[in-house]
Amino acid sequence: MKPSYQPNSKLDLSFTRTVDVPRSLVWRAWTEPELLKPWFCPLPWKTIDCEIDLRPGGMFRTTMQSPEGKEFPNEGCYLEVVPLTKLVWTNALLPGYRPSVATETCGSENASFLFTAMIELADHAQGTRYTATVIHADEAGCKQHADMGFEGGWGTALDQLVAMLKKGV
Amino acid sequence: MKPSYQPNSKLDLSFTRTVDVPRSLVWRAWTEPELLKPWFCPLPWKTIDCEIDLRPGGMFRTTMQSPEGKEFPNEGCYLEVVPLTKLVWTNALLPGYRPSVATETCGSENASFLFTAMIELADHAQGTRYTATVIHADEAGCKQHADMGFEGGWGTALDQLVAMLKKGV
Repeated sequence: MKPSYQPNSKLDLSFTRTVDVPRSLVWRAWTEPELLKPWFCPLPWKTIDCEIDLRPGGMFRTTMQSPEGKEFPNEGCYLEVVPLTKLVWTNALLPGYRPSVATETCGSENASFLFTAMIELADHAQGTRYTATVIHADEAGCKQHADMGFEGGWGTALDQLVAMLKKGV
Repeated sequence: MKPSYQPNSKLDLSFTRTVDVPRSLVWRAWTEPELLKPWFCPLPWKTIDCEIDLRPGGMFRTTMQSPEGKEFPNEGCYLEVVPLTKLVWTNALLPGYRPSVATETCGSENASFLFTAMIELADHAQGTRYTATVIHADEAGCKQHADMGFEGGWGTALDQLVAMLKKGV
């Protein structure tokens, strides 16, 4: 089975990898706060808080902490929840589908940083086929995210996820 | 059955009415372009084009025309589609859940006009209980929509919908 979404190369960032851990555990690592916090940020950044209301319109909130101790809250909502298969969320909508406050994003460095993200999982002979896609509003947002090291960042987080699962949850 | 969503009085606009037409036809009037165009804009405004891809992430696009002939395109995507019961869409996301381009809304009169809308239908002894709710990012957007005559406008559109159905689809 191919991933359902066909990325737009100018607006989206996407990678697919095979990981040798069970699909059911990868799903749990994405959907249970205590299993998400340990791996979600590439070290030395940390995820110090996480709230998950796993249904369309439900909250997905994380707080990241920089190595210097500064906290960065992120709040969004889930759009699609297909157990073991597909998880879609966005920060363009808050829980209950309320649009994010435009004034907070206008004219700041966050303006281009609205995105929708999609994790797709499928069975694979060696474990799990894992596809991560991030959908941006415009090319500037996409480029900014790429320059920050999207694949390196999300890939490192995935390495951390796999390492956590191999140690046993 | 009460509507599932409890509006926030400072950020949302909502009204509930009972209409004496069948729930199945009200649903069709909201989800089939040829049945939506005749009633969707309070006259003398018209809806001259409509595209509907009725699934979460699918397109909901309309083009309204002012009495002077100016065209106003609107594009968004569906978030929830529960046949005969609940329809949710937003203009904060484009089809495929892509965030709307922030730069197009920043600094313009459209900045506060991102919204998520919800139509909820239920059986009623006299026909159909109809609830319309519009969820805004902030109080300014909510007030602007109220000042434009939300309940009058959406209520008049509903009157037009009911009149269309009574003439026979």
